Amino acid sequence: MEYRRIKDQDMDGDPAKQDIESLRGKPTLLDGAHFPAPHDKSKWKMRSIVTLALTFLTSSQAILIVWSKRAGRYEYSVTTANFLVEALKCTLSLAALARTWRIEGVTENNRLGTTVDEVGVYPIPAALYLVKNLLQYYIFAYVDAPGYQILKNLNIISTGVLYHIILKKKLSEVQWAAFVLLCAGCTTAQLNPSSDHVLQTPFLGWMMAIIMALLSGFAGVYTEAIIKKRPSRNINVQNFWLYVFGMSFNVVAILVQDFNAVVDKGFFHGYSLITVLMIINHALSGIAVSMVMKYADNIVKVYSTSVAMLLTAVVSVFLFNFHLSLAFFLGSTVVSVSIYLHSIGKLQR
Amino acid sequence: MEYRRIKDQDMDGDPAKQDIESLRGKPTLLDGAHFPAPHDKSKWKMRSIVTLALTFLTSSQAILIVWSKRAGRYEYSVTTANFLVEALKCTLSLAALARTWRIEGVTENNRLGTTVDEVGVYPIPAALYLVKNLLQYYIFAYVDAPGYQILKNLNIISTGVLYHIILKKKLSEVQWAAFVLLCAGCTTAQLNPSSDHVLQTPFLGWMMAIIMALLSGFAGVYTEAIIKKRPSRNINVQNFWLYVFGMSFNVVAILVQDFNAVVDKGFFHGYSLITVLMIINHALSGIAVSMVMKYADNIVKVYSTSVAMLLTAVVSVFLFNFHLSLAFFLGSTVVSVSIYLHSIGKLQR
Repeated sequence: MEYRRIKDQDMDGDPAKQDIESLRGKPTLLDGAHFPAPHDKSKWKMRSIVTLALTFLTSSQAILIVWSKRAGRYEYSVTTANFLVEALKCTLSLAALARTWRIEGVTENNRLGTTVDEVGVYPIPAALYLVKNLLQYYIFAYVDAPGYQILKNLNIISTGVLYHIILKKKLSEVQWAAFVLLCAGCTTAQLNPSSDHVLQTPFLGWMMAIIMALLSGFAGVYTEAIIKKRPSRNINVQNFWLYVFGMSFNVVAILVQDFNAVVDKGFFHGYSLITVLMIINHALSGIAVSMVMKYADNIVKVYSTSVAMLLTAVVSVFLFNFHLSLAFFLGSTVVSVSIYLHSIGKLQR
Repeated sequence: MEYRRIKDQDMDGDPAKQDIESLRGKPTLLDGAHFPAPHDKSKWKMRSIVTLALTFLTSSQAILIVWSKRAGRYEYSVTTANFLVEALKCTLSLAALARTWRIEGVTENNRLGTTVDEVGVYPIPAALYLVKNLLQYYIFAYVDAPGYQILKNLNIISTGVLYHIILKKKLSEVQWAAFVLLCAGCTTAQLNPSSDHVLQTPFLGWMMAIIMALLSGFAGVYTEAIIKKRPSRNINVQNFWLYVFGMSFNVVAILVQDFNAVVDKGFFHGYSLITVLMIINHALSGIAVSMVMKYADNIVKVYSTSVAMLLTAVVSVFLFNFHLSLAFFLGSTVVSVSIYLHSIGKLQR
């Protein structure tokens, strides 16, 4: 297993690297709900802030997408936009780092310099996402876009299973049940009269959907493994290197897919205000995801984006006169119970 | 509270009356999962048999209803059929009693003779069901039949709440969550493209649906209170007296609603083979419900009838070429998780 290799590499040298790492999973004062240590309190605060930020950014992302569809399609090239998202994330990470250096000075944990040992595995998540995005073009031969939205909920299950297998973290029985409910609840909330078509998806379509869910779940869990590997390492340095590889992979994508369009019509052809807003939003969401991986985990990320999906629907009622279906209410109820069970399930372990 | 009155009356006299009663709710050997006493084992076996019987009878009931609808409507009077159901239940209880008397002889617990103290509260469930059935005619002014099927799932919640309040039995947090999920899952499984109409139900319709759910839940919980009041009393004697009042109330209903039709066309006018099968099925289901109240409880009854609803849909695929919707799969998943949570929730208390 790749992750074990990363962990083993880390066992040499700097004891500071093992600070929180060595405490993880063991019941210590840090985990005590009754007497939170000051450090625990600030960690809890950080978790809450990044989780709320991710929820807010994900739901505003979905609203921007609905808005852009209503405003008519723009003919910008998706690959250039993706490149700019990675470049913006890189720039923001550097800006945050510059501020840290000014305040704390350059230390072992926040210096930009790195080793092949540290960043050797950083390209893997970017590569996985690239493969997943390529597959995305092919799955539409088997299933339509609304059907794909439904099938994407398989990500929830794949993330839970891979989180358990790769990160070796235990979920209680109640938390597993909560995870199945989260998947069923999200899917129920998205039901519409034509959803039943999904059941006619051919076998190859199901296989591709499952493979994509596994790739996406694996990329997420692997990113968490990379970021959590050195808990004391500054998150902005970790992000910087992740995004450098993200930029590189997107340069390849531009050259392969949109080289002619960029040469003929220019890099920014078809860009509008909404395109710029979407790029900014994607960049901030991406950083929020990294922060959630650092200070919380993939499970929190999945819950956060699921709640964002429900929030989006509620906000759309006011913004776009959407109507909420009975299925939406039932799905939201199941998701709410799932969140409740996840939180009480933790205590009962 | 009525139930407390019943309990207080019972405190005098016969200590045998308090046998299982006094053990209820306390952790004793009888509750121990590790070392089941022989008595516990036979109790568990009885619980399983009556629960399976109820599930089987309820789902075959629904299938008979679909069959009778497909075969065209019969113009028999519902009140005479209801009377015959009660009469058949009464006869079957007497037959079972006669067998017991032959084997065990007449004892304090199986003699038919009774006191006003014992049967004084027996007419209450029958009266509650009568009021609920009368209301049923009026609710259709506000909501159509498929919408009413959806609203009937409120029974699940009302039964849980009244079970807790009246019988003073505790459900764990996980079990409460499971109960909410059971309601949401059953409703989801019944969703169809026109279900959203339910959301337009006027306020009065909602009120009536809630009142009917409370009446139905109260009647169920009250029946359990009556039957559990004297655990050592033979269930067939208890049933006999319950059904005697059921018959009486149905005589009143015939006189009020269908007197002219019965005089003009005869008592059995419009009866067919399917009517007879439905009467037999209703009678057996009714007895199974009483048995579940005696050997299990209202919570088991609700789970049993919910599973029956799902089974009916699956069987209908083969019998009537029904197709199962994505909503049905999602709802069934949620119901299954609910059953799992209910069972593990018990252990975690």
